[in-house]
Amino acid sequence: MNNHWDELISALQCLPHVGKRSAQRIAFHLLANKRQHSKKLADSLNDALANLGNCRLCNNFSPEEICNVCSNPKRNNSKLCIVESPMDLIAIEQTHKFDGLYYVLMGVLSPIDGTTPTSIGFSKLEKRIVNAQTKIDEIILATNFTNEGETTAYVLSELIANHKIKLTRLAHGVPVGGEIEYLDLGTIARALIDRQKY
Amino acid sequence: MNNHWDELISALQCLPHVGKRSAQRIAFHLLANKRQHSKKLADSLNDALANLGNCRLCNNFSPEEICNVCSNPKRNNSKLCIVESPMDLIAIEQTHKFDGLYYVLMGVLSPIDGTTPTSIGFSKLEKRIVNAQTKIDEIILATNFTNEGETTAYVLSELIANHKIKLTRLAHGVPVGGEIEYLDLGTIARALIDRQKY
Repeated sequence: MNNHWDELISALQCLPHVGKRSAQRIAFHLLANKRQHSKKLADSLNDALANLGNCRLCNNFSPEEICNVCSNPKRNNSKLCIVESPMDLIAIEQTHKFDGLYYVLMGVLSPIDGTTPTSIGFSKLEKRIVNAQTKIDEIILATNFTNEGETTAYVLSELIANHKIKLTRLAHGVPVGGEIEYLDLGTIARALIDRQKY
Repeated sequence: MNNHWDELISALQCLPHVGKRSAQRIAFHLLANKRQHSKKLADSLNDALANLGNCRLCNNFSPEEICNVCSNPKRNNSKLCIVESPMDLIAIEQTHKFDGLYYVLMGVLSPIDGTTPTSIGFSKLEKRIVNAQTKIDEIILATNFTNEGETTAYVLSELIANHKIKLTRLAHGVPVGGEIEYLDLGTIARALIDRQKY
């Protein structure tokens, strides 16, 4: 149709799982019905890009050099929980069951997608562990239980083994409210093996 | 996490079928891996919003008051093809089988989504028909063959009936390359009823 349209279509394809057709539909939706919202979207995207860097300590997005979790004196700085993404951190925070600090990998090892230990910054994590002001005495691996997450946990465990720090992983088991009949066999098996005193 | 993040999450929810969870994933994707692309996205969105209005004649997105289809003297201005969206116009243009002009509804009648004849600008279409410099002698209804598209075609046909212009609709039938065995019965029935001399 014209350059403005074509450039928008091409730019929209940086969104995850958006190809040319979806980009056209999104552009139509934004320009035909949601002009005000679109303006807000463009502005807040620019704003986030300009203001959100990565926390020097935990690597999470943060407008300050040290984020408000890392700089909170009430947090237990001898425990470090390693998560894949900011969303995982938010989910764990919402449980109110962890008062330690985090390290956000901002990704997961996935050779297919081209993410390697270097690209997701394992070296920044190692620096974080070595330079910790208070000695870290427990590292919790809270990557997902997907193939990529398990691989990442395994590679991290080898990296951390050199530092002689207690290493733990989130428990496997039956989800709260879960019905055994509908669970996959792997989960039932792990729940049996890791059964707890009642 | 902080205001910039929350505002981006809220703004991303203006994208079609994007809720809070998807918005978080998109924001993570953009900020963690695609900063340069994101900047381009924000800029081209702002650019499209600032530059793309609607063509005064055909209602399609256009940087000028009259778009380059409507202002093309080689087009047959006695034929008007009514489509739902700019994507439909692009698809028809790519066939090179139509040399007339278009009118883009920028939507379809759908009471559930709150689109009514007023909100998708039937009056602008009527004005377009009445004020045409060359008399329009055929209007082609090229809305989709969905429930909403068929309803829109029907309502348009009633509107246009007053103007005594020949009204046509895209043909139903077997798609090119289609196998009869796998077609729905409605399409086979219509293809039979509308069979052509061979």
